[in-house]
Amino acid sequence: MKWPRTSLTERLHIRYPIIQAPMAGGLATPQLVAAVSNAGGLGSLGAGYMEPEEIRSTIREIRTLTDQPFAVNLLIPEPVTEDAEIIEYAYALLEPYYQELGLPTDDSSAANLANLPNLYNVPNFKEQLAVAVEEKANALSFTFGVPDKKEIEALKEWRIPIIGTATHLLEAIVLEESGIDIVIAQGAEAGGHRGTFIGDYEQCLVGAMALIPVLVDHLSIPVVAAGGIMDGRGIVAALALGAAGSQMGTAFLACPENGVRPHYKAALQAGTEISTVLTRVFSGKFARGLKNRFIDELLENETDLPGYPIQNALTRDIRRAAAEQDRPEFIPLWAGQGCSLCADKPAGELIREWVAQVEAIIGGDR
Amino acid sequence: MKWPRTSLTERLHIRYPIIQAPMAGGLATPQLVAAVSNAGGLGSLGAGYMEPEEIRSTIREIRTLTDQPFAVNLLIPEPVTEDAEIIEYAYALLEPYYQELGLPTDDSSAANLANLPNLYNVPNFKEQLAVAVEEKANALSFTFGVPDKKEIEALKEWRIPIIGTATHLLEAIVLEESGIDIVIAQGAEAGGHRGTFIGDYEQCLVGAMALIPVLVDHLSIPVVAAGGIMDGRGIVAALALGAAGSQMGTAFLACPENGVRPHYKAALQAGTEISTVLTRVFSGKFARGLKNRFIDELLENETDLPGYPIQNALTRDIRRAAAEQDRPEFIPLWAGQGCSLCADKPAGELIREWVAQVEAIIGGDR
Repeated sequence: MKWPRTSLTERLHIRYPIIQAPMAGGLATPQLVAAVSNAGGLGSLGAGYMEPEEIRSTIREIRTLTDQPFAVNLLIPEPVTEDAEIIEYAYALLEPYYQELGLPTDDSSAANLANLPNLYNVPNFKEQLAVAVEEKANALSFTFGVPDKKEIEALKEWRIPIIGTATHLLEAIVLEESGIDIVIAQGAEAGGHRGTFIGDYEQCLVGAMALIPVLVDHLSIPVVAAGGIMDGRGIVAALALGAAGSQMGTAFLACPENGVRPHYKAALQAGTEISTVLTRVFSGKFARGLKNRFIDELLENETDLPGYPIQNALTRDIRRAAAEQDRPEFIPLWAGQGCSLCADKPAGELIREWVAQVEAIIGGDR
Repeated sequence: MKWPRTSLTERLHIRYPIIQAPMAGGLATPQLVAAVSNAGGLGSLGAGYMEPEEIRSTIREIRTLTDQPFAVNLLIPEPVTEDAEIIEYAYALLEPYYQELGLPTDDSSAANLANLPNLYNVPNFKEQLAVAVEEKANALSFTFGVPDKKEIEALKEWRIPIIGTATHLLEAIVLEESGIDIVIAQGAEAGGHRGTFIGDYEQCLVGAMALIPVLVDHLSIPVVAAGGIMDGRGIVAALALGAAGSQMGTAFLACPENGVRPHYKAALQAGTEISTVLTRVFSGKFARGLKNRFIDELLENETDLPGYPIQNALTRDIRRAAAEQDRPEFIPLWAGQGCSLCADKPAGELIREWVAQVEAIIGGDR
């Protein structure tokens, strides 16, 4: 087994074929991104929800912490469907949580439906991308689809490696045909949002063990395994399946460099392989997280809730207030099915441990 | 990496840590079971639906084909819930299929509800077990739970290795505490029936990549990975994750020794990683199979259908007639998410190929 050099390490100029998953919404701090890159992996800034100037300042902050390559991740914009009836329905369901958290429902609030159109204005993708290029991101990764042809051509001109996310073969083929350089194969085990952009999310929940070999057999670009990979064992398994490397998110969530609050960290470590569910109650898009009260109470209504980014806007104040008040029962506790294995150790130490573990497994020293 | 000797090969006296999954209902023929055992794996007779004397004759048939060890798999009986209203509802849904297949609805038919209690009389478990022991099965594997204490003690006295099936950690711990010798960890990718016996099946869909390391860390008995393993790549991945071996079902389905009809085989090979669904429309218990017309048409009603074995009895004549008339749209086409990788080659040849693949991967010769 080729270790540590693979087509991925060569393409990205990194030492180990380990990518830290871009966990948007502040889950992956600049400190975490830099620590992963300093340890020989590829850190990723989950910049999808950031305004262009915040992306700029955050990239600069990361540059002060590392001289190693890191990626910037953006979310491909999707058409927004606004239906007043659905929004009213969702708001009626959410109102009790506004009240319980003592949130105002005045003119400035997300609970004031007049504000909604402003609230779900997502940052401008083209401007985000332009800043990431200007600030010389070492790689750009994308979720929820493919950048358009001109954007891809521009990135190629700048020789910036382009990473896409697929949850099944057809998506992966679309990515490769579009000129994407590296495909993340997101197994059903993965925490956070499903990257599915073709087909029904439920039909596209393919476990990494089945997903990786199929993609590897059909693509000529490197395939990176994601979902359920928590340590050196998973890293070797991914390579054995033919992947050029692993993308790991949940495995880094509890790192001290990271911004995850104590309650979230405790929930992660107390979680088991059956503690997570796939739900769209927080954002309008399906994502895997630890079950909590908010999910429990809204799960039966979730098919009737608005899509992303409207539902995301409607729950924004709830999520913010719950974070401030340290009430994890109202916060999305994104986590993959391997969460019980996440460790509260510095990212660099984790990577060193995984590398040693990989070498022990490959060397037969078990 | 230890290859080919593991705690599994030592315990079962087999050459390679490869178990052929017990595919009940005639999917795994005596020829397939023997071919796998002859090639150095452990064949498994899926005897769950067989009457005791059929088990006896089938074991004897396998013995004429191999002198190597093989397992007999039985299904732990569960309490049957009979609700006349639910049965009538299901029958009303199924009646059009009886008609379309030209099935009689006379006194002898499953469609005659007066016959139902006889039809869902499953074979007597204690008698099945007694025959398997008398006929000196080399190992006994169980699905849907744990044999009772006395049965386990008897098997231990006879020094017959006992294999259980778990879909999450709590089930695995229950199996180990009950005295089971080997645990199959059934990942969400697996084809056929979910082995879940504690908790809701949907909550217990854990991908193999996340499931295996968690079980390995908590158990002291060997853990065998199942779900999505289709070739040498999956076999190495399972070992890397800490499993003592792999159980493979779909990978053997298209073997010429097997009884799968041409239509089923064609559907398997045409299937993709997103062609399967989990459904209880055929048996009353959730199982993974290729989507077909019967599933498509009944899926929205499936929560209201009776449980196993009643629904299984109600669909029996439909399944039989569809098989005779070669109409795969009414047959359960059980398949795992890796189905597109299954090959129409003799089982012995497949195992030789996988062994060579494993050695190439471990040797770094890629």
